[in-house]
Amino acid sequence: MKLYNVAILGATGEVGREMMKVLTERNFPVAELRLLASARSAGKKMTYMGKELTVEEATEDSFKGMDIVLGAASADLARAFAPAIVKAGAVFVDNSSAFRMNPEVPLVVPEINGDDVKLNKGIISNPNCSTIITLMAVKAIHKLSPIQKLVASTYQAVSGAGAGGPIELAAQNKAIVEGGEIECKVFPYQIAENLIPHIGSFLDDGYTTEEMKMQNEGRKILHQDTLKVTCTCVRVPVVRSHSISVSVYTERDLTVEEVKAAVAKEEGCLLVDDPASKKYPMPKDTSDQDIVFVGRIRKDLAFENGITLWCSGDQVRKGAATNAVQSAQLLVK
Amino acid sequence: MKLYNVAILGATGEVGREMMKVLTERNFPVAELRLLASARSAGKKMTYMGKELTVEEATEDSFKGMDIVLGAASADLARAFAPAIVKAGAVFVDNSSAFRMNPEVPLVVPEINGDDVKLNKGIISNPNCSTIITLMAVKAIHKLSPIQKLVASTYQAVSGAGAGGPIELAAQNKAIVEGGEIECKVFPYQIAENLIPHIGSFLDDGYTTEEMKMQNEGRKILHQDTLKVTCTCVRVPVVRSHSISVSVYTERDLTVEEVKAAVAKEEGCLLVDDPASKKYPMPKDTSDQDIVFVGRIRKDLAFENGITLWCSGDQVRKGAATNAVQSAQLLVK
Repeated sequence: MKLYNVAILGATGEVGREMMKVLTERNFPVAELRLLASARSAGKKMTYMGKELTVEEATEDSFKGMDIVLGAASADLARAFAPAIVKAGAVFVDNSSAFRMNPEVPLVVPEINGDDVKLNKGIISNPNCSTIITLMAVKAIHKLSPIQKLVASTYQAVSGAGAGGPIELAAQNKAIVEGGEIECKVFPYQIAENLIPHIGSFLDDGYTTEEMKMQNEGRKILHQDTLKVTCTCVRVPVVRSHSISVSVYTERDLTVEEVKAAVAKEEGCLLVDDPASKKYPMPKDTSDQDIVFVGRIRKDLAFENGITLWCSGDQVRKGAATNAVQSAQLLVK
Repeated sequence: MKLYNVAILGATGEVGREMMKVLTERNFPVAELRLLASARSAGKKMTYMGKELTVEEATEDSFKGMDIVLGAASADLARAFAPAIVKAGAVFVDNSSAFRMNPEVPLVVPEINGDDVKLNKGIISNPNCSTIITLMAVKAIHKLSPIQKLVASTYQAVSGAGAGGPIELAAQNKAIVEGGEIECKVFPYQIAENLIPHIGSFLDDGYTTEEMKMQNEGRKILHQDTLKVTCTCVRVPVVRSHSISVSVYTERDLTVEEVKAAVAKEEGCLLVDDPASKKYPMPKDTSDQDIVFVGRIRKDLAFENGITLWCSGDQVRKGAATNAVQSAQLLVK
């Protein structure tokens, strides 16, 4: 079996650490694993497959000899290091938003448009986490009849804001239980026992950058330029796993039965839809795994040709780390 | 000034206690206040306007001499006591779901269809809490152009399940912080750091009774029989105030500017919509008051003639107690 030299750029963050875990779980054919991070994290020790590795500072010279670089850093760092990665002859599978809408860069959810990895010119982009989870949940529907429109409201976990999110939620919960001061550093307002309808930056039309990703990235992933999406993104006091309430409008009218049957057979999805037994997707159940749970499937009552559903998936795994490793697996297959 | 004898049926519950507070705040012209509850609560002392009152067991004889009975009990109890209340000559302003869809009973949000109280034959119904808050947020739009359809996803606080909801959330949060057992009595699953897409009972078509209220009650309140609503109701770990992400589709196309201007002038609403200054509705800010906060107003991107917005309101107050007292105020005006 051919082995590959793999680097993780941003190895010490939430997604970087998860990438290391997913590489192990999936028994990725790794020759050397190189852990790269900022100067601040250089020297840290991390364990991979029982071996202790030392985190190195990422520099332009860090990528020589690498076959694959998994990007778990910011968009700015991704942009800064991409030329050096490509020049070194590695393929950069980047989780940041830096290259997602670049027409030269495939934007891949392996179960949906895995073939697009072949079009890469050195960079493959990982989509936004809510977009991945929503599209995973509706892809069975898209195969039955092309999706025309989506109306989505997200319920996004604090870990979507990085490793600091869960720490801030835990500290605020502790302050509420024990009667201390509430501190807000990661989120603009208290998130414990609150909801913040603000993820990303606001655009002139009132949408956030995060909300527009579902339409912009959805079009590219589904190869459907006319897809129209209205999305409202909300941060909720959940540690891990994003959930989405979404109405899906298709070209032809679908029955609930055929949608349920299609979701049940779909790769990467689990149909959790038995209301009588109180079975429906919940973030508590989907955390720390790769499967997107799909349930509450019913006919939309507002518009024709609509199906309304609810889904939950771990955005650090399928929404980020796992999706990137899956793209890397397609590269080496 | 004429004074009225008022009873609260279910005075010791979350909504009943809030009704007493709202009567005080609004300086309702009360002659006698009679606090009624189950045998279990009889004998409890509660304070109203500085006077100590004793809770009495509700029986068929409890309503003699009363002018208004505010109902904060279950639908079953409302149905059981309604004949005695009407026979005693009182008007029953009931917060339960018992009579909402009864064609003989007006279903009233005072700021929307206050005139309907005049049609009462002894019973006035208070709508569902999420329905009240959503309709309060969109009524300015309805006045600009009749609403045809709504696609709504709710983020409902634990206090919507009664006084036990916040106690259960607090106990679960404490268990998470201190490392104890998570107990679930009020909710079917852990609600702390989780989301439960299940409020009410499931119907054959996959919707819950709670989800259907927005369409069924919305039609009656707005006097719009053709209104179509798709709603997904989700319990979130927030103590108080429900929030709703809603897309509103009207007969004619509206601009964001005219909608914002209309909401800003609307009774019972506060326009909180200045993204550049991070101003948007949040449940933390709307709790313990009567105003529904409306923000994130923007053009819907999926369908024509659509406006998408986000709103938050205290469901124990405007969603229940305040709305009932407001109906009573219209009765005595």
